[in-house]
Amino acid sequence: MEQIIMQPIGIIHSPYKHNKDIPIQGVFKPDVEAWIELKDKYAGGLKDLDGFSHAIILYYFHKSQREEIEGQPFLEQNKHGIFAIRSPHRPNHIGLSIVKIKKIEANRLYFTEVDVLDQTPVLDIKPYVRYFDSRDNVKCGWVDKHFRDGKIPHKAIYKCEESVGR
Amino acid sequence: MEQIIMQPIGIIHSPYKHNKDIPIQGVFKPDVEAWIELKDKYAGGLKDLDGFSHAIILYYFHKSQREEIEGQPFLEQNKHGIFAIRSPHRPNHIGLSIVKIKKIEANRLYFTEVDVLDQTPVLDIKPYVRYFDSRDNVKCGWVDKHFRDGKIPHKAIYKCEESVGR
Repeated sequence: MEQIIMQPIGIIHSPYKHNKDIPIQGVFKPDVEAWIELKDKYAGGLKDLDGFSHAIILYYFHKSQREEIEGQPFLEQNKHGIFAIRSPHRPNHIGLSIVKIKKIEANRLYFTEVDVLDQTPVLDIKPYVRYFDSRDNVKCGWVDKHFRDGKIPHKAIYKCEESVGR
Repeated sequence: MEQIIMQPIGIIHSPYKHNKDIPIQGVFKPDVEAWIELKDKYAGGLKDLDGFSHAIILYYFHKSQREEIEGQPFLEQNKHGIFAIRSPHRPNHIGLSIVKIKKIEANRLYFTEVDVLDQTPVLDIKPYVRYFDSRDNVKCGWVDKHFRDGKIPHKAIYKCEESVGR
């Protein structure tokens, strides 16, 4: 299997029009709101998702023009393997965010904890199930030192245009 | 953007040769071991991932021949929207698992907490970062009642061939 063809199931409407405005992860700027507008044929797929507080959204990094093997994450100067960072410049350009569900209306899923660019194509939505998706006793490699004092690093909330990675 | 073309970055070698043998999520049968064999050109992308205890793997449900809008999950008889369950029979057929990293050797990532079929094509690997990926105070819709007593339901560990969904 050398080629897999996918089609967007919908699109994200987000207040973030430029990459520089986006926090590295939406959980660090939790009040911003966005919504997914699904193609009409998929609206029925949202049934019962409103019983969940969070969803995992998978989307296509449509603005990335390149594929890197190593990259420099926003939080530091060191390079790491692309599979050890969350950069958009990755093979297959799939993005993943955990978002907080606000409400569902017809083919629209409104959410907060946004870190996605406006007009991003959506590939999938999954319910966030803590019995599968949450882990204790987790070691987070190069990331841990940036959160050592229990605080969110300033750079994780605001980044500048020159950043490589997210 | 109506078509997105992806290519597998590698393949999963798993002891699970048949769907009926797989637990609904790998965390419920944690001792089983598997590995991802990346294409050689992506081996460098694993650099520094060994500092993380867990990874998120995204893969292609290559055995699913259909796309459903609603489906019946393994744990119960009720149907739910496809975006409220984790069934493989979903638009774009992308699977997601959180796995425990055991070791990395050249282009191979060995892991436990496996719930993936042998020969599954891999689309992406991301570091599991608890500051982004873990959530407290989570509500899990139709799933919560099955875990109410704090125990893992028997059906979440072993399932029979007739199951719909995972």
